[in-house]
Amino acid sequence: METVDVEAVERETVELLDGLCRWPSVSAEGAVLTETADFVQSLLTQSGFETRLLWADAGPPAVWGERRGESDWTLLLYNHYDVQPVDPIDLWDSPPFEPAIREGKLFARGAADNKAQIALRLATIRALGDSLPVTIRWIIEGEEEVASPNFDELIRRHADLLHADGCLLEGGGVSPEGRPTIALGVKGVLAVRLDVELLSGDAHSGTAAVVPSAAWRLVEVLATLRDRAGRVLVDGFYDAVREPTEEQRRAVAEQPETDEDDLRAAFGVVEFLDGVTGVEVRERLAFAPTANIAGIRAGYGGPGVKTVLPARASAWLDFRLVPDQGPDEALELLRAHLDRRGFSDVEITALAKADAATTSPDDPFVARVISVAEQVAKNKASIYPIIAGSLPVAASLERHVGVPALIAPDNTYYPGCAAHAPNEHIRLKDIAPAIRYFVALLVELGRS
Amino acid sequence: METVDVEAVERETVELLDGLCRWPSVSAEGAVLTETADFVQSLLTQSGFETRLLWADAGPPAVWGERRGESDWTLLLYNHYDVQPVDPIDLWDSPPFEPAIREGKLFARGAADNKAQIALRLATIRALGDSLPVTIRWIIEGEEEVASPNFDELIRRHADLLHADGCLLEGGGVSPEGRPTIALGVKGVLAVRLDVELLSGDAHSGTAAVVPSAAWRLVEVLATLRDRAGRVLVDGFYDAVREPTEEQRRAVAEQPETDEDDLRAAFGVVEFLDGVTGVEVRERLAFAPTANIAGIRAGYGGPGVKTVLPARASAWLDFRLVPDQGPDEALELLRAHLDRRGFSDVEITALAKADAATTSPDDPFVARVISVAEQVAKNKASIYPIIAGSLPVAASLERHVGVPALIAPDNTYYPGCAAHAPNEHIRLKDIAPAIRYFVALLVELGRS
Repeated sequence: METVDVEAVERETVELLDGLCRWPSVSAEGAVLTETADFVQSLLTQSGFETRLLWADAGPPAVWGERRGESDWTLLLYNHYDVQPVDPIDLWDSPPFEPAIREGKLFARGAADNKAQIALRLATIRALGDSLPVTIRWIIEGEEEVASPNFDELIRRHADLLHADGCLLEGGGVSPEGRPTIALGVKGVLAVRLDVELLSGDAHSGTAAVVPSAAWRLVEVLATLRDRAGRVLVDGFYDAVREPTEEQRRAVAEQPETDEDDLRAAFGVVEFLDGVTGVEVRERLAFAPTANIAGIRAGYGGPGVKTVLPARASAWLDFRLVPDQGPDEALELLRAHLDRRGFSDVEITALAKADAATTSPDDPFVARVISVAEQVAKNKASIYPIIAGSLPVAASLERHVGVPALIAPDNTYYPGCAAHAPNEHIRLKDIAPAIRYFVALLVELGRS
Repeated sequence: METVDVEAVERETVELLDGLCRWPSVSAEGAVLTETADFVQSLLTQSGFETRLLWADAGPPAVWGERRGESDWTLLLYNHYDVQPVDPIDLWDSPPFEPAIREGKLFARGAADNKAQIALRLATIRALGDSLPVTIRWIIEGEEEVASPNFDELIRRHADLLHADGCLLEGGGVSPEGRPTIALGVKGVLAVRLDVELLSGDAHSGTAAVVPSAAWRLVEVLATLRDRAGRVLVDGFYDAVREPTEEQRRAVAEQPETDEDDLRAAFGVVEFLDGVTGVEVRERLAFAPTANIAGIRAGYGGPGVKTVLPARASAWLDFRLVPDQGPDEALELLRAHLDRRGFSDVEITALAKADAATTSPDDPFVARVISVAEQVAKNKASIYPIIAGSLPVAASLERHVGVPALIAPDNTYYPGCAAHAPNEHIRLKDIAPAIRYFVALLVELGRS
């Protein structure tokens, strides 16, 4: 059986991570994306990969690499080299693009999401050297943090480079009580901006008795979209929802009960929406589509008083979708819903779309991933049939490549990692277990 | 009969106005208020006034002055030396505090609101010299544009300096068709900020299935406050409303029909609220209390997508009140309305309060003001029993001094003057008629 020096791989992971995190690859700002892609490509080339940069018509390149292993069984890896913006910058304790180690943690923007996983996978593959048990294909995109607007097209064009027997997506880790987490699906998303404009300019609020207000109109629109229990009121929104299977429900029931406490603690939640507790919290996170207001802007928002009647008002919404709700269909339903209520003048701009995607728990790849995870962690896996978040690549791979894809614990994710927030970090102690799991999985997959 | 050289007074008005507008007396920013008060005081002193600076416990000083005239009949004048902020500064065609004359207009922040009236009144009084027909008392405050938070207290303290037989407030002018406008009342106002905070920090929007959203909660709150026709839904809001009198209704019916067109043109209104037209537009502006959203802020409001679930959300509201609605009572009604609907966690901060105030059309001072206006303009006056805006000083004078106060056409206001907006200005051609009116009124009042 192939083995690696885990401590040495751990050291190399930290070294690679330090180098990766020094690239301020903020996709929302279009910053140094091609340069970061070049750097990542060079790392793969140095590690024995045949590499290419893949392009769509727009957007940054994706890095592709392939390294032949001892068997033809092919594992596709997915990651992204882009990161979230750093704002609010003044809440960081050290500069976000100067990785700093304090109290057993490595702090940097992108450390947890998801450069540690790139470093960890690469260091492991390097350490396996000529004993790599399976063939690895790897695609690392540069626009995940802006909802991958061009990546579906890129995957469609280059599907032949991505065929594989199984795919490990990004993310994953081990729960606080030591249970490895494995996710088999992601929600879809439709993100839109609603714009209301009723006047040529802001009016004095004294005229509010007769002059129509964009702010009130936006409130009236939003109030028709969701009830206080969180149920989406868009006409026909639930028609396409596929009922979860018994197996999916059982998996959710068996997830750690501490997920609820973690969520309460992370955001200081006093009471969940609609008063739900226990398994119902986890069921909604897995199976409930949602309508979220990401932001509202109208009129004045400064100190004191300004008695203005706003000419314009905007809301940013995202709808999380479950199988078989599609983002295009959701957009049509929203438009029809507004038109039916006299809101035809409200402009809808689609900002991001992604389909939900799920991998069948019956796929033999899934069983092997789970079984190795439970052997390595010596603990029962928690299975997430659908996670609360979205990952556009999952549906693109399902549509154009047809490879079973999932999120496995070959990563260091933990609930306090502050992904997308100031002081993002990983815990160094989470690296070794992830390496051990990744090695064991590669060995197991090489046995086929 | 006393007369003045109107052209000379016009020239002096422009000169005084130029000097006044060079002071950037933005009360919202606390800028050079005491310095501007000193300057205004010196102008009054040079013009034969006995002067004082009056203070409350907080806030900038008000300038007070008195000049004895040929009779003991005393006219109180009210103005303010503060101005609105200049933002958005890039929309100004010339620097806001460097008065510029172009195409018969004088452009500067504060020119229309309301330094031209200070200049015009002062130049006229100077020109009358020893022939001033009545005794003038004048109070010029420094926080009108921030809703006069300390001015009621200041008036209460110094009421003995303000007793008079009649008071001319700020504003007024002649309508586009040459009808002098006279306003006998103002609406009250309650301005509040509503704050909702449900989480310790923003959450990822994937959690929206169970994590409560401040943005949605704010929308739910706002949706209970007003219907689509503009009617305020706060429980009991209309209970204190005094029905307008027949005389008030008749005055509104006789206002220029072009008011509606002016309002449409000023803000590009396609359809008024609730589809109203004609006299109903003017009736609502005069008699309808309102709930206005001055601003909303929640979550993200930038380019592209950020799938965040906001921890906090705020709305800025102002309610315009009519007799006998009081701002304190309105605040209590709002709190009770929210509590009754389960929104006890929504914080209400009162930002500004002012009472409505009306002067009786039966007061003999009113009849004289109207009669002189119609003689000078050779046109029927339009009477506004209550204007759509608020002027806190009106209720303070009613409460502490008991002087009949109104807005007369001794001013240059016209609908296109861009008060509170970029490129604020007055038309130079409106100065002479206002001087003629002011002189004629002083002469008439001296006859008593």
